[in-house]
Amino acid sequence: MTKVSTILTGGTVVTMNDNYDVFVDGAVAIQDSQIVAIGPSADIRAEYTADEIIPCDGKYILPGLINAHTHAPMTLLRGLADDLRLDVWLMGYIMPTEREFVSPEFCRLGTKLACAEMIMGGVTTFADMYYFEDDIAETTEQAGMRALLGQTILKFPAPDAESYEGSLEAARAFVEKWHQHERITPSVAPHAPYSSTKDMLKLCAQLAMQYDVPIIIHISESAQEEEDNFAEHGLRVVPWLKTTGLLNAKVLAAHCVHINKSDMATLYEHDVTVSHNPQANLKLANGVAPVSDMLENHLTVGIGTDGPASNNDLDMFEEMRTAALLAKSFTNNPTALPARQALTMATRDGARALFMGDKTGSLEAGKYADIITMQASTVHNWPHFQRDENAIYSQIVYAGKSSDVESVMCHGRWLMRDRQLQTLDLSKIMGQAHDFAQKVDDFLSSHENDVVSKLLAVGGLERAESFEVQMKARIDDADLVQKLLDHPDVEVLKRMNYRQYDTYFTFDDHDMGRVRYREDDRIDERGEVSEVRARLTFTMPTKERVFNSAVLLSHSRFIAPADRPLRFYQEYFQGADVQVLEKERQRWHIHYQGVLYYINIDSLTEPKMRDMFIEIKSRTWSLLDAQHKADGISRMMDILDLPQGAAVRQDYLEMTPS
Amino acid sequence: MTKVSTILTGGTVVTMNDNYDVFVDGAVAIQDSQIVAIGPSADIRAEYTADEIIPCDGKYILPGLINAHTHAPMTLLRGLADDLRLDVWLMGYIMPTEREFVSPEFCRLGTKLACAEMIMGGVTTFADMYYFEDDIAETTEQAGMRALLGQTILKFPAPDAESYEGSLEAARAFVEKWHQHERITPSVAPHAPYSSTKDMLKLCAQLAMQYDVPIIIHISESAQEEEDNFAEHGLRVVPWLKTTGLLNAKVLAAHCVHINKSDMATLYEHDVTVSHNPQANLKLANGVAPVSDMLENHLTVGIGTDGPASNNDLDMFEEMRTAALLAKSFTNNPTALPARQALTMATRDGARALFMGDKTGSLEAGKYADIITMQASTVHNWPHFQRDENAIYSQIVYAGKSSDVESVMCHGRWLMRDRQLQTLDLSKIMGQAHDFAQKVDDFLSSHENDVVSKLLAVGGLERAESFEVQMKARIDDADLVQKLLDHPDVEVLKRMNYRQYDTYFTFDDHDMGRVRYREDDRIDERGEVSEVRARLTFTMPTKERVFNSAVLLSHSRFIAPADRPLRFYQEYFQGADVQVLEKERQRWHIHYQGVLYYINIDSLTEPKMRDMFIEIKSRTWSLLDAQHKADGISRMMDILDLPQGAAVRQDYLEMTPS
Repeated sequence: MTKVSTILTGGTVVTMNDNYDVFVDGAVAIQDSQIVAIGPSADIRAEYTADEIIPCDGKYILPGLINAHTHAPMTLLRGLADDLRLDVWLMGYIMPTEREFVSPEFCRLGTKLACAEMIMGGVTTFADMYYFEDDIAETTEQAGMRALLGQTILKFPAPDAESYEGSLEAARAFVEKWHQHERITPSVAPHAPYSSTKDMLKLCAQLAMQYDVPIIIHISESAQEEEDNFAEHGLRVVPWLKTTGLLNAKVLAAHCVHINKSDMATLYEHDVTVSHNPQANLKLANGVAPVSDMLENHLTVGIGTDGPASNNDLDMFEEMRTAALLAKSFTNNPTALPARQALTMATRDGARALFMGDKTGSLEAGKYADIITMQASTVHNWPHFQRDENAIYSQIVYAGKSSDVESVMCHGRWLMRDRQLQTLDLSKIMGQAHDFAQKVDDFLSSHENDVVSKLLAVGGLERAESFEVQMKARIDDADLVQKLLDHPDVEVLKRMNYRQYDTYFTFDDHDMGRVRYREDDRIDERGEVSEVRARLTFTMPTKERVFNSAVLLSHSRFIAPADRPLRFYQEYFQGADVQVLEKERQRWHIHYQGVLYYINIDSLTEPKMRDMFIEIKSRTWSLLDAQHKADGISRMMDILDLPQGAAVRQDYLEMTPS
Repeated sequence: MTKVSTILTGGTVVTMNDNYDVFVDGAVAIQDSQIVAIGPSADIRAEYTADEIIPCDGKYILPGLINAHTHAPMTLLRGLADDLRLDVWLMGYIMPTEREFVSPEFCRLGTKLACAEMIMGGVTTFADMYYFEDDIAETTEQAGMRALLGQTILKFPAPDAESYEGSLEAARAFVEKWHQHERITPSVAPHAPYSSTKDMLKLCAQLAMQYDVPIIIHISESAQEEEDNFAEHGLRVVPWLKTTGLLNAKVLAAHCVHINKSDMATLYEHDVTVSHNPQANLKLANGVAPVSDMLENHLTVGIGTDGPASNNDLDMFEEMRTAALLAKSFTNNPTALPARQALTMATRDGARALFMGDKTGSLEAGKYADIITMQASTVHNWPHFQRDENAIYSQIVYAGKSSDVESVMCHGRWLMRDRQLQTLDLSKIMGQAHDFAQKVDDFLSSHENDVVSKLLAVGGLERAESFEVQMKARIDDADLVQKLLDHPDVEVLKRMNYRQYDTYFTFDDHDMGRVRYREDDRIDERGEVSEVRARLTFTMPTKERVFNSAVLLSHSRFIAPADRPLRFYQEYFQGADVQVLEKERQRWHIHYQGVLYYINIDSLTEPKMRDMFIEIKSRTWSLLDAQHKADGISRMMDILDLPQGAAVRQDYLEMTPS
């Protein structure tokens, strides 16, 4: 007799191995973190003895479930705002709350709550993508779960980084710290194609490949995303991603709701795996992913809950069931995605999707002991028929519930026994989450009528580049600019004249940012107005720094077409100070040493100012790129013979009496 | 102080009344079966005292949920056969099992199991449609639930009646017995348009209107149903139903997956209410009902689980959530069917859909005390935000679970307290259900390769009329038929000549029925074959009776196009006895006194027989109609001068040496 740590015996062992072996009176022998043997109880008991022998009569013994996509700390935002338009939900509630509250402490508490819920629902492994991922990793490590954890990288400023370069640095440190860990696999997580630049995706892929860790990314979540990608790059999302080199890394792609068969072939060719997140896709009205097609095209597909802010729970039983049910109506075929396949996606294939197929996802000797036991005899799942060998999967998938899960082991350690959590103090966590929710309630109540909400209600709001580099200098003679335009390193792309009518709405509370309504009248050669465009720009409080003489602004800027008359906005932004600024602007788009800049020669007409100004500007998503561009501006100042001290840091609004 | 029976106090009372009042520290005062007062705890406690005062801190107090559509006894068939083609599921598993096992005892046991599950999931009221509905009513009455119970009426033979007339009689007795009951409302339940005749629907409506009880019917469940209805009647399902007069009764229509806006207007005009059953519709690949459109068109829509054989549970929390999620992607609008509306459909509107809006569905003084309490502080539903008044509905609908339900009261009586059932012995019920499942397993295993399964696998199987009336007589002279054809009461509609090649497959086990492969060669005036058709007819063991001299056969008969060569079927039905029969047939379609009959003059060529035979036949779904037609046949025999004793009862197969 070989002595092992633990034997689970007498249950119905559903191995989810490649043969789909089921042992009706079965047993699992566990030594430390690993499964050493599995089979009929009699065979196992004849060969092994153990410190602890646990009878599992009337229970299913299953591999721990794999939640292939979530944002764990967002448990703390569960039910914050539901049933809203996507832009209102995201920009009106989730983003302001994240900006205000997301911190290492937030991520630790939210991860604890998420781990508690996942463990109680039979999940032993999850894939996460959020901010401060190192804090999430430490918390998950302590909770005892297995996870693939991705440090988010965005071209926008994030709660944990001002620029994507900052996020990449954090990701590198994160990967270096964790990539040897037994249970935590670090990952690089560029948020999505539309929130990335090509350069950023290249750097992400390089980092991931250097350490052989996976990439996590959202792909083709909405039809809009495909449309926008095509409009911007002339390619669908997947082929465009291929051009960035991202697919050369090990990629776990979340969503893939709107991919087509050619996309599937590309994903397959690059061994990209997929997380299907049906409930979140339904709730945000993004549609139904073509899962049956993906499976037919041999893609490895796991199932994920997505974040609880858009689900609203982390219940893999519901998610499996939804996946199986939806696929049938989506393909008009009641035999599509049968129960056994859904459970495979939530276990063995989920593990493969997380690039952990060798470690977990099925009950097999040599794999880690990630095991759950589950009440088989419940009122909602009774009676049981035996004739059909698939009936057991039907029982688990179509009528099983997370509340049926009794005990959960991960890596040989008990995380829950008889529904009592072993590694987390649930009542303490819930108390802290409650206190947090009250703070968020207060914050949102006090921002109920803030500018973003008002702008969202008007519609069309979009996020603009995070970094602006600019130099402004007072000049006497507009012709000065010719020095620059005539320089051999400069190519003039475009020239225009404008008359600009700006109305600024500012607020007592500086944190509320400011809104500019601008009417741009384009003036043709005859001096006539040839085109009028109006738009709103909303700028949150801005950080500014000086690089050489250029000013580098990093800010959250949102733009929207202003499709109503100015009078409307004047009434709409009640309580705002209103300031008016009018100017004549000559404008050039130039390439200087191959880089795009805008040159403005401005004369203020209201309030009237005698001086003219030259501005050299550029915009970018990258902090590094912003710094390079600031250097370029400095060199252009030399061409213009402007001393570095000539630069003016005030903006026009600050120069005028308010 | 007024003394009442019970006060629930200190919970968050979610009234679901027309104002959607919520009392965060609220109370409900109950006297016997009714709610007498509801409001803030302090107000209620100041005015009322009670025998039992129940603290509900940290709990939601909600109206009991309404399951607007189910087939309760089918809990006993849960998970019997899943992920199958609809015809295979229905004709291969559910129908044979129902034919063999459905009995009053089956219905009582299945209803007990269903009531136990529903009570444990917070349901106090349900709408049912099945066989032996009186047994279901008695069981439901004892379990203490409220219900709208429909005796099923089908044109096919049913487990509880040979003919629809039999079902109608049972329905009349059922309605008479129960229509004064406080908790049980009886109902007349014609199964569906495609399984009804027009006459049958008229009679159903008359019966329902006579007692002012509702009709329950499945409408437009599949796209196929709409297509078939149009092909047969030249109308969509709803307009055709209108022509039958059925919509003049109070109708609760289940499914309505494929109705259009014009159908919705018709339903609204007739005060037809709807049960939306999203999970069953998905699982059977029938699609997604246009619920948002229905609500916009002012229809009253409840939510139902449908039977657990196609769901596979009776969980209204899942069903609400699925309804709310699906509607969003179905309309590309994340604001569609918000959580509050989903909960309204599962409570107040559900009650209205069951024509019980005055009795239940919300917590209001004067309504019956149908109340549930539910854990509000669970890990999967935490934290709670208060700012948004809809947040509480979001908590319940998007993250609530049936396992959160703690106590359930119906009509003032506790059905569950602290998750202990009060009116049902769960372990006994589950034990009996287990024994039953074993019998079904044995039965199905022994029929694994039976004829229906084999026919289903071949495809195209359809059910044919239940009743056949026929008279056969030996004659010497084919010209005898002219007497009939020339009679003033007879109109000849059509005349044809056939050569028929029949191959019969019969089995040792008589219960397995027999299959006929028939090749019909149509012979034109020149004696040439002008058309060839082959089809299979499968007949289950047949009951026969004699009415006058005609034989009345009642049987289950299925037909299918035989699109493969005879040799295929000979190999396919291995183990069958094969008999061949060939004949020349002259055939007339006639109206006799306005009723359609078929006249055959047959000469058997293989095996060769000297005699000729005349047959007069008709088919019908109605037993009464069959009897009328038998009378007609008897009168035609008089016209032919055939003595009543001339009729031969053997069929050709029995006359020939086997």
